[in-house]
Amino acid sequence: MTLTVAVAGATGYAGGEILRLLLNHPAYHSGELEIGALTGNSNSGQKVAALMPNLPPLADRTIQKTAPETLADHDVVFLGLPHGYSAEIANKLPAETLVLDCAADFRLTDEADWVKYYGNDHAGSWPYGIPEVPGRRELIASSRRVAVPGCFPTGATLAALPAVAGGLVEPDLSIVSITGVSGAGKKAAVSLLGSETMGSLKAYNTAGRHRHTPEIAQNLRAVTGGEVRVSFTPVLAPLPRGILTTVTAPVGAGVTTESAHDAFSEFYAEEQFVWVLPHGSQPQTQNVVGTNMCHIQVEVDEAAGKLLITSAIDNLTKGTAGAAVQCMNIALGWDEAAGLPTAAVAP
Amino acid sequence: MTLTVAVAGATGYAGGEILRLLLNHPAYHSGELEIGALTGNSNSGQKVAALMPNLPPLADRTIQKTAPETLADHDVVFLGLPHGYSAEIANKLPAETLVLDCAADFRLTDEADWVKYYGNDHAGSWPYGIPEVPGRRELIASSRRVAVPGCFPTGATLAALPAVAGGLVEPDLSIVSITGVSGAGKKAAVSLLGSETMGSLKAYNTAGRHRHTPEIAQNLRAVTGGEVRVSFTPVLAPLPRGILTTVTAPVGAGVTTESAHDAFSEFYAEEQFVWVLPHGSQPQTQNVVGTNMCHIQVEVDEAAGKLLITSAIDNLTKGTAGAAVQCMNIALGWDEAAGLPTAAVAP
Amino acid sequence: MTLTVAVAGATGYAGGEILRLLLNHPAYHSGELEIGALTGNSNSGQKVAALMPNLPPLADRTIQKTAPETLADHDVVFLGLPHGYSAEIANKLPAETLVLDCAADFRLTDEADWVKYYGNDHAGSWPYGIPEVPGRRELIASSRRVAVPGCFPTGATLAALPAVAGGLVEPDLSIVSITGVSGAGKKAAVSLLGSETMGSLKAYNTAGRHRHTPEIAQNLRAVTGGEVRVSFTPVLAPLPRGILTTVTAPVGAGVTTESAHDAFSEFYAEEQFVWVLPHGSQPQTQNVVGTNMCHIQVEVDEAAGKLLITSAIDNLTKGTAGAAVQCMNIALGWDEAAGLPTAAVAP
Amino acid sequence: MTLTVAVAGATGYAGGEILRLLLNHPAYHSGELEIGALTGNSNSGQKVAALMPNLPPLADRTIQKTAPETLADHDVVFLGLPHGYSAEIANKLPAETLVLDCAADFRLTDEADWVKYYGNDHAGSWPYGIPEVPGRRELIASSRRVAVPGCFPTGATLAALPAVAGGLVEPDLSIVSITGVSGAGKKAAVSLLGSETMGSLKAYNTAGRHRHTPEIAQNLRAVTGGEVRVSFTPVLAPLPRGILTTVTAPVGAGVTTESAHDAFSEFYAEEQFVWVLPHGSQPQTQNVVGTNMCHIQVEVDEAAGKLLITSAIDNLTKGTAGAAVQCMNIALGWDEAAGLPTAAVAP
Repeated sequence: MTLTVAVAGATGYAGGEILRLLLNHPAYHSGELEIGALTGNSNSGQKVAALMPNLPPLADRTIQKTAPETLADHDVVFLGLPHGYSAEIANKLPAETLVLDCAADFRLTDEADWVKYYGNDHAGSWPYGIPEVPGRRELIASSRRVAVPGCFPTGATLAALPAVAGGLVEPDLSIVSITGVSGAGKKAAVSLLGSETMGSLKAYNTAGRHRHTPEIAQNLRAVTGGEVRVSFTPVLAPLPRGILTTVTAPVGAGVTTESAHDAFSEFYAEEQFVWVLPHGSQPQTQNVVGTNMCHIQVEVDEAAGKLLITSAIDNLTKGTAGAAVQCMNIALGWDEAAGLPTAAVAP
Repeated sequence: MTLTVAVAGATGYAGGEILRLLLNHPAYHSGELEIGALTGNSNSGQKVAALMPNLPPLADRTIQKTAPETLADHDVVFLGLPHGYSAEIANKLPAETLVLDCAADFRLTDEADWVKYYGNDHAGSWPYGIPEVPGRRELIASSRRVAVPGCFPTGATLAALPAVAGGLVEPDLSIVSITGVSGAGKKAAVSLLGSETMGSLKAYNTAGRHRHTPEIAQNLRAVTGGEVRVSFTPVLAPLPRGILTTVTAPVGAGVTTESAHDAFSEFYAEEQFVWVLPHGSQPQTQNVVGTNMCHIQVEVDEAAGKLLITSAIDNLTKGTAGAAVQCMNIALGWDEAAGLPTAAVAP
Repeated sequence: MTLTVAVAGATGYAGGEILRLLLNHPAYHSGELEIGALTGNSNSGQKVAALMPNLPPLADRTIQKTAPETLADHDVVFLGLPHGYSAEIANKLPAETLVLDCAADFRLTDEADWVKYYGNDHAGSWPYGIPEVPGRRELIASSRRVAVPGCFPTGATLAALPAVAGGLVEPDLSIVSITGVSGAGKKAAVSLLGSETMGSLKAYNTAGRHRHTPEIAQNLRAVTGGEVRVSFTPVLAPLPRGILTTVTAPVGAGVTTESAHDAFSEFYAEEQFVWVLPHGSQPQTQNVVGTNMCHIQVEVDEAAGKLLITSAIDNLTKGTAGAAVQCMNIALGWDEAAGLPTAAVAP
Repeated sequence: MTLTVAVAGATGYAGGEILRLLLNHPAYHSGELEIGALTGNSNSGQKVAALMPNLPPLADRTIQKTAPETLADHDVVFLGLPHGYSAEIANKLPAETLVLDCAADFRLTDEADWVKYYGNDHAGSWPYGIPEVPGRRELIASSRRVAVPGCFPTGATLAALPAVAGGLVEPDLSIVSITGVSGAGKKAAVSLLGSETMGSLKAYNTAGRHRHTPEIAQNLRAVTGGEVRVSFTPVLAPLPRGILTTVTAPVGAGVTTESAHDAFSEFYAEEQFVWVLPHGSQPQTQNVVGTNMCHIQVEVDEAAGKLLITSAIDNLTKGTAGAAVQCMNIALGWDEAAGLPTAAVAP
């Protein structure tokens, strides 16, 4: 049996990365998975050759106009659409279609959070696509709808989760996440020009204004039950891909680097896409580029009374498209790791 | 049957890229190909986890000391060693072992070229690993020894070949090749520091001094029979990977952009790893990063009386490790494209 | 006496760089030169603090709307406006005002060139602002109108001029100019995003299509009298500032690296902003960033029968704003080098 | 009267930047300040033209061997030497010579800190060269010895000082400082290669191991009297110059963004080189490149209960060489701002 896959918003960075991963998927090579409709908006009618020359096997495909009816007769639909518009399309797709939404529309469970950060109409919430969070893998497996997480929440959640869940820290986190520029998407804006971003570093949407703040807190609250304070500071840095996250929090009594490292290693013992690095090694974004991996390190700063956790992901892969494909694999009952690189394009 | 593969010089950029590609190879996943000894020099005794954290599946492997006896009992040996040392090791390997040498030792057929550019002892020459050059694929298929080409010669040869072979230009080429810094290898040198290379552009080994100059000329002479003049100017640019090559040459009478484009398209019609882009599109290194592709464009500048050809490759993939794996596939009688990405990690 | 200076298009890259140089000008510090109106278009009404935080001394200034009457009562007016619009404004300024136009409107002497590359209405031509071209310094000194050259023509002209003028080469040049992204200006476009330009190299406007092609040819024809063939290939590279130009041309009989180097050194012996580097040194853009310098090297490639000239400039300084200030100094009878850095911000 | 200046370690990044600033100094142009001996170690005997082509006015100078007797007969000596070696040379210079030491040797007042972070022999401490710290300017003015601060301590101290001194926060700081690669100096190391640093982000010397940690704490303790906890996480990012620092700390009761901004503005009201940006603006390293400025923003994250302060400096200018020249100006009784750019080379 052959499953067909459509990608809406195929010409954006998330869409393009989903296609790169699908082209590498064993099911694509065996013919079990077929790439169907590729849709866009302003680009519709154009060839992939002109829009995404990095995808030669699809060069002759034509981008269609995004519309529910174009997407409907596929078994799997990836949505790489703007917030708001995504829910509008998603809600018109058949219930039996596996829909993986890379927008924020179905990520937040709390309507007040949604209203505060995105606007008035809360579309609801879907199973959240970080399978490494305890309990989530099962939800994803049994659902035809997945809310693919944001890139910052992925790096921050995977870093903080074992510490918060295991009580290694007080739930009072200072998170600084440094990101490559593709995180801002493929939209023309002066502040994102090469001239403005190369050779420069800048914090933005600081002091709780970034929309990923409530998403991080929600993920962590899920394992503590209680409140988790999150100070979140995103920083734009001059690289195309990659997020390095640092999490600093008051360390619990008796926690040592050794015990924290053990706790993290145990927490992720069964996970294929999280690597708690050997002592003394720090995550480096270069080592995860193009992969679905999250590299993590943890240590205690005794003099400062803090636990420091660092993580590295590729914002477009594990941070978006890789997570989406991982969730697709789970929801289809396939090998969770199928088509997902772990060896990075470095240097 | 399982073939075993060794990589000598595994911790250099060529070696690391070969490993990345092998980890993605279907024969590795099916168990037909096994990664055996990984050798190094100053790094021997250390774990891959510490040296190449971008290769998690090999994290627990230990780098062994490079020595013929360590490499000998493998079916395939990739050599990512310094010039000179490579021939020394290669000459001690069994005749039935498939050896793919990424150094220059066996590339040049002319002893005088070798002596002028590399030193005194010419090790000889092996079948040259650009399968896209007419006649070479067959030689590779029947040989247990392959001289993997240099990165600049790959980009320049693939760009210039159809023009020179088809008589579209006078054999008098001005070639400027702009390269990312990984082309210089993983060696500590002040001139290669991030501080010295980011935000800067510099020509080097100009005016015929670069060792890849005779290799380019040799490749082109092979199709013309006669002399080919090559002015070769390499430029170092601030990116990790990628080579953009521009070839300018006096255009032949009656040649038009249309006819040149047709000639190029026809020349490479059967090739999976060369893409002559649609009219109006220019190769961009971003679109080949991590792949074995070469993107090419050609057009006539009528006012200047020149044919302009541009090509983009990833210097570590099609420019080195990808070519090596492609040649391995050919020599083993496997699908030539096995394990070789064509969809690039972009942006 | 105090002269007042206005900058139209002050919030673009050329305008901002002019302001940076003026703030460093001794006449500004002595009070002989006063910075008056700063004008823009969509940005008018906003503070410099918000638009150009790199210029703290002007932070409290407000951008005014570009209009002839706002600019008119200044002694010096720099125009950093779009082509076409520039001439429209320029033609309404008083004859006694010193006007330095950074657009192309008054650069080309040949109407056919203008029509072919820019459109229908040729505004005419003004003295051309490369003072290092023989005869130009005097024209600039006696004029109240200066056409500031394009960035590519500056690097290419300074590189090729001594060779063409001195008959060291046949007038048949292959020029490849690699530029940082600020050369494209501060305009929102997907192709100029950090994501699209970092880690990538791309030729564009190839085969004679770039508007700077006729400008280069015009500059060189001026010294030969006869025709000069120019193949011009611009390449976009991942750095904010800097142009590295390579000029390759058939070398004349008897010309050696030594004699060519001597000829270049003599040609520029009196020039403060051109440095013919010592033998063996190659220009590097890093070494000219923020300065008004052009670094040059020249050598003969005997095997290829070519003369190779390389030059490095900062496209925004010597390539635009620095040239404009240098011309202002000349036209005002001031020290030509006043306010113009020669020591670069490196690394 | 003419003062002579020597620079020891002139070919390193600090030394080169000192020279760039001196060449721009009005006292150099007026003849009151003369650049004397330039010394180095492995580079001695070579020309500046070959070593630092970014400094054309000094091209013909020859680097001498670093030795006390070579430096002694100068009025001002800048030391850009390795830790340890710096004190050795410094201690042999005449008492009346103004010595500005860019190494760490005389920065730490606490011997235990020195021993822990640098080794056994504590050379003592000199007046510390951040004139913006209350009381320090006077000490510098009356001393012939100045310990120029480290780059990270400059950015972190200027950011945290008003908050700590004014009691806006609990003295429990989480500091993440993201730096360009020139901060690591001009030394050949694989980890600092362009290939390893471009396109990558990495934390290093984490959890209190970085030598700048005690220096930051010492600066802040000086204004509180009591203990200050500092968690310091340095991150290496792909740009040549610039440090962006984020300081997060528990905000005091009743402190608002408005009141904090006012407190910061008042604290630095008289400072020429610190700019507390308008509300809503974030520091960007691009806007301080090549200048002696520190741009700062401060705001309250109410939900997280934190004060967030961000600062941007150029690590080689305000972070090292600019501070050194600023201190020289103060110690010589000159205009503190002489020769120190405030308008940045951006983009």
